[in-house]
Amino acid sequence: MSKDLAGSGLPARVEDFIGKQLQEVEKILFAELESTNPYVTDVFVHVTRFRGKRLRPMLLLLSAAANGGITEDHKTLAAVVEMIHTATLVHDDVLDEAATRRHVATVNARWNNETSVLFGDYLFTHAFHLASSLGSTHACRQIGHATNIVCEGELSQIRERGNLDLDEQSYLRIIDAKTAELCALACRLGAEYADSDGSVVESFEQFGRSLGIAFQIADDLLDILGDENETGKSLGSDFDKQKLTLPVIRLLEQSAEPEASDLRDLLTSSDAGARSELAARLQRSDAVEYARSQAQEHAATARRCLESAADSPARKILEELTEFAVQRAF
Amino acid sequence: MSKDLAGSGLPARVEDFIGKQLQEVEKILFAELESTNPYVTDVFVHVTRFRGKRLRPMLLLLSAAANGGITEDHKTLAAVVEMIHTATLVHDDVLDEAATRRHVATVNARWNNETSVLFGDYLFTHAFHLASSLGSTHACRQIGHATNIVCEGELSQIRERGNLDLDEQSYLRIIDAKTAELCALACRLGAEYADSDGSVVESFEQFGRSLGIAFQIADDLLDILGDENETGKSLGSDFDKQKLTLPVIRLLEQSAEPEASDLRDLLTSSDAGARSELAARLQRSDAVEYARSQAQEHAATARRCLESAADSPARKILEELTEFAVQRAF
Repeated sequence: MSKDLAGSGLPARVEDFIGKQLQEVEKILFAELESTNPYVTDVFVHVTRFRGKRLRPMLLLLSAAANGGITEDHKTLAAVVEMIHTATLVHDDVLDEAATRRHVATVNARWNNETSVLFGDYLFTHAFHLASSLGSTHACRQIGHATNIVCEGELSQIRERGNLDLDEQSYLRIIDAKTAELCALACRLGAEYADSDGSVVESFEQFGRSLGIAFQIADDLLDILGDENETGKSLGSDFDKQKLTLPVIRLLEQSAEPEASDLRDLLTSSDAGARSELAARLQRSDAVEYARSQAQEHAATARRCLESAADSPARKILEELTEFAVQRAF
Repeated sequence: MSKDLAGSGLPARVEDFIGKQLQEVEKILFAELESTNPYVTDVFVHVTRFRGKRLRPMLLLLSAAANGGITEDHKTLAAVVEMIHTATLVHDDVLDEAATRRHVATVNARWNNETSVLFGDYLFTHAFHLASSLGSTHACRQIGHATNIVCEGELSQIRERGNLDLDEQSYLRIIDAKTAELCALACRLGAEYADSDGSVVESFEQFGRSLGIAFQIADDLLDILGDENETGKSLGSDFDKQKLTLPVIRLLEQSAEPEASDLRDLLTSSDAGARSELAARLQRSDAVEYARSQAQEHAATARRCLESAADSPARKILEELTEFAVQRAF
């Protein structure tokens, strides 16, 4: 079980419940990515050190379990979504010029940007190759579609960089695409490959989407308020890259002149103390509380999506995951 | 018909023969990549300006035609391989930090590296999504496998950068993976989706592979000897990035001391005149001629692979393409 769930109260229960299947997913990942090229293997082994919570495979397997049981196809699909997620992480680190992730040097810091770009591509193409080992094109279509949306979301985020007028709705649209889409896909595939009805599949997809949004809002809060030692990754990159996130959008909306102009200056400042000054202002306002309550609201929506599912240990864990998503400090 | 074949004598014949189908491939490409996001559309429209020879869709359609005829599936697959090729070009330009391609600013120069990385990903995922619209997983598997090899080839190239002991065999292994694999795939899919026998499919795959190797050797020669005005792209990047290519490998092998040490110094020099000095040394030796003769040899191997195919206008054009691949000056 990943150490990243430590402290959330979940690890022992997840371990008991799907620990064995998660290990099998790991085996599929390693078997697929084993390369005759020692350089590729080196990079892969390095990357496995910063892969984290295994949230997406967990969502897929738990959605399967809540709908009747985990099959071999589910494990393959769990490996596919984790590979795609890892590919986006590796490419994100190039974009953010991040130096560390989960206390480990990123690929671009350890090798170079070229290796990050190519290794991300390598993970993408392996994910699709693995998806095509299933019996039909159904999963390939779903995965292709979802990853298109993820890329569009990331491109939108780049376009909106430095836009101090970004509103809450646009922010939500971006995180829905760049983060929630893959969580929604994981839950959808879990239910779908357990032969669930269309309406159940949709509920699980919506569950994953709402959980993903809650998770990303919490992640964006951490980028401003978190402790690098605790999170194990480079923080403040949203601020450095002038990516507006929910608490900042709220603070801007709630500020009157001359504070608003002052805040805009701060957001475009490259002064060393600017990030901590922003954090202090956020703390003094209702912005952090507002963002937390929005995350809570999406988590509650996620839990409501599970109401139509039969009571089961898997459903219970999925419910708990929604709480973990907003409460985590790492 | 692309202007890039102008002067090769081929344009009119290719236009007469598969011009209509190539236009349909373009339509599929545009329909698949049409986005509701205006930023994504902007980048795509920009990229279409530097997409070039359409070599891979041409190979796929001609291989289909030489094996009985072009179907709708062939056109879809031609769009897929072109999308993958374009994705690798966009990412290559990040890696090479190239400023222009085909007289047009690259995505990283016009926008930024982040956009290049994400737009390349967007093209990859769209390619796989489009491939999954076919009836079975067969094409997805083939395409996934081939693109894995392309990425491994590119990663090997990065690893070997600055290795002045790279030998001819290792160089050939790299270009086989990074360039020839996708040409081989295009020809293979062309024959396969025309219901050809296994041995014919293999001959066409080998044809594409040999042609791809010939093409890349010629491309590497252009990087050293070409004229930026004529080629329309940034040149000398192999030299700048210390990527050893065939003529340089030959020159190193043929040099005795003290010329060999002197040459090694030149290859690692960042002096302004170093590239033209290298070009002059290559011209004085047999290295350029040797590389050309190797390209010719691979082109001849490609032509031999076509011998088992029935005589047809498509086969004739494929034969001519092997000559174009080595003679082009752009």
